[in-house]
Amino acid sequence: MKQSHLFTQTRKEVSQEEVAKNAQLLIRGGYIHKEMAGVYSLLPLGFKVLNKIKKIVNEEMEQLDSEEIIMSTIQVKETWEKTDRWSDEKVDVWFKSQLKNGTDIGFGWSHEEPITEMMKSHIKSYQNLPRYVHQFQNKLRNETRAKSGVMRCREFVMKDMYSYCTNEEEHMAFYNKTIDAYMNVYRRVGLGDITFVTSASGGVFTDKFSHEFQTICDAGEDVIYVHKDGKLAMNEEIFNEETLAKMGKKKEEFEAKKAAEVGNIFTFGTGKCEQLGLYFTDKDGVSKPVYLGSYGIGITRLMGVITEVFADDKGMVWPEAVAPFQMHLVSLCREDADIAKANEIYEKLKAKGVEVLYDDREGLRPGEKFADADLLGMPTRVVVSPKTIAAGVVEVTNRKTGETTMQPLESFLA
Amino acid sequence: MKQSHLFTQTRKEVSQEEVAKNAQLLIRGGYIHKEMAGVYSLLPLGFKVLNKIKKIVNEEMEQLDSEEIIMSTIQVKETWEKTDRWSDEKVDVWFKSQLKNGTDIGFGWSHEEPITEMMKSHIKSYQNLPRYVHQFQNKLRNETRAKSGVMRCREFVMKDMYSYCTNEEEHMAFYNKTIDAYMNVYRRVGLGDITFVTSASGGVFTDKFSHEFQTICDAGEDVIYVHKDGKLAMNEEIFNEETLAKMGKKKEEFEAKKAAEVGNIFTFGTGKCEQLGLYFTDKDGVSKPVYLGSYGIGITRLMGVITEVFADDKGMVWPEAVAPFQMHLVSLCREDADIAKANEIYEKLKAKGVEVLYDDREGLRPGEKFADADLLGMPTRVVVSPKTIAAGVVEVTNRKTGETTMQPLESFLA
Repeated sequence: MKQSHLFTQTRKEVSQEEVAKNAQLLIRGGYIHKEMAGVYSLLPLGFKVLNKIKKIVNEEMEQLDSEEIIMSTIQVKETWEKTDRWSDEKVDVWFKSQLKNGTDIGFGWSHEEPITEMMKSHIKSYQNLPRYVHQFQNKLRNETRAKSGVMRCREFVMKDMYSYCTNEEEHMAFYNKTIDAYMNVYRRVGLGDITFVTSASGGVFTDKFSHEFQTICDAGEDVIYVHKDGKLAMNEEIFNEETLAKMGKKKEEFEAKKAAEVGNIFTFGTGKCEQLGLYFTDKDGVSKPVYLGSYGIGITRLMGVITEVFADDKGMVWPEAVAPFQMHLVSLCREDADIAKANEIYEKLKAKGVEVLYDDREGLRPGEKFADADLLGMPTRVVVSPKTIAAGVVEVTNRKTGETTMQPLESFLA
Repeated sequence: MKQSHLFTQTRKEVSQEEVAKNAQLLIRGGYIHKEMAGVYSLLPLGFKVLNKIKKIVNEEMEQLDSEEIIMSTIQVKETWEKTDRWSDEKVDVWFKSQLKNGTDIGFGWSHEEPITEMMKSHIKSYQNLPRYVHQFQNKLRNETRAKSGVMRCREFVMKDMYSYCTNEEEHMAFYNKTIDAYMNVYRRVGLGDITFVTSASGGVFTDKFSHEFQTICDAGEDVIYVHKDGKLAMNEEIFNEETLAKMGKKKEEFEAKKAAEVGNIFTFGTGKCEQLGLYFTDKDGVSKPVYLGSYGIGITRLMGVITEVFADDKGMVWPEAVAPFQMHLVSLCREDADIAKANEIYEKLKAKGVEVLYDDREGLRPGEKFADADLLGMPTRVVVSPKTIAAGVVEVTNRKTGETTMQPLESFLA
């Protein structure tokens, strides 16, 4: 894409109200637009990052045989009353409104209830089980504090998946497979080495057990205790003598780290389906409640964590898998013949299927273009200038390492 | 996809409350789930149709050089107050709620205002213009009546595009190009012959002119007057002596038809940008307001209209371009050897890249499977049975025409 066609402009400053580094950088780069605290719109570059992350997550969910759907944002009061999660005392993040005729409605902050209610039309017998469904849905949550940029929003994109199983064994087998799928996601977006599965208490979501996925991140709101072997970590809530004794580990072997939750999974056992009336007829003819699991990844949140973890003082540094473009081709050419040469390189890269952002903008100083390239954070920067053209080379810089090499144009294009 | 893996089940009946044919069929086929009047969730088959329509629309918008974004659902009161569209007296479809601190928020029923407000960060000079942006966004509208199934919803997916231009000429050139792009969309989804561009009054949206795209459809809420040449149609509001005289046409040459609006486009002139403060510096150094156009297609609505227009008394009849699967492979096999043969045909079709739904379900009578295939409405039904296997053929039926032919298996697979 030609940068001259991109409607968004970069900027040097953002409003002082925006205290989160991720939002500061994403706004400065024109990736997002702030509507209000905790509410952001996604502009073309941000939308591309979102879609890259969604694609990776979707592929992993499809590997689990999950089917994609999209539930409504508008929620039916009666469904949530069945599980006692309608009242503001029980769930304090509801946005609510009313139809013209006075009917109360809510706006979806989670979807266990409506999906389970919907499943009653489709699950009757053991032959209809197990079933897995997921969606990428715009959740609305009336958060009191929203100061972490896209890491904690009042409106955000979440991948939520739900599993419906006949018994505990089937349920747990899927639950454990999901842990692997989630770790695949974090590995693929570049966070594999610093992301840990931790056991958590669960809170409002469940009366049974749950796990969190925590990424070491200075901007995170949690603290985890990471074992010196780098493979095990524990949530603060359960980091105590009792748990350590059970695991045969010593307190001194762990180090406290700030971390951001990038996913969480819950088991509801059969409780939720009993409340909502989702039963199936088993092989023995007996009616039994279905086992429910719930599996979430905040997609926009993940985008925020990736920004925080990799950014440096010059701007964003996107891992290849989620970068809006793989390459930022920066032209410093001013003469027609040179510009034609730069255009030609751009066209050849496009023809080869390279995702390339082409800074063809006129009238900017090299320093301004370099600052923008650093801020926007594509993995590879390629500079074409009168000098490189004369020498038959391009200047290739790795955004992450800063390493620069001159590459012969021919071999670069090959 | 194997039908045994599809979690949705078909059904013979729907609640009597559901009066719209499109919703009745889509619910019976398991394409959608009704949450409440005017609020539907999209299940796997419905989600696939939605994505096919979105892809076609998106391709046409990209041809217009529009950039894709996604704006927030949560709306800022102050932005809408600037154009006097916040109050319920002025706009009667708002859903509203409040943040914990008492701040009023709205839920997006349209996005001219926030997109224009956002553009103020990115459009400063004539060099930043023209610009076109679009999104596929979940609109929320507090409709009083919602009895037309997915054709008029309280929550629905809309493609909305906005154009920002420097002057009227540039603006009108784009406006007219959009009419062609929209007609391409309707042609590609199979509605080209029965869809007309009509001039409309505009209502709440604009103080200037606008056009609608109307598809002849018995379930439509509008009436249009179609000229006997089949190429011209007029909205009811402007079908009068004055307009006819201007066009040099006679009343008798037109026939009244029920129609459904499948798109609408508006010009706001410079009015909206003046209210919101979106100005640019022109070549002559003078600050001028930007010309705004707004262009909408209801994606879920279009799905409803396609359902209504093509369905017959047996069920849905999808045009190829939007069908969730091109082919419905129905196996009537019961013996292992035959089932293996049917599986083999399925695998070969998949390997060839055919989008195929494979009815591999066991224990159903042929009549039940045929009824489901008719209800689900894939363009081509292919039956594999012990008889066809013995004869080395498959039975191929066109869902639309009902025409059935026996095709040698080998040539069918080639």
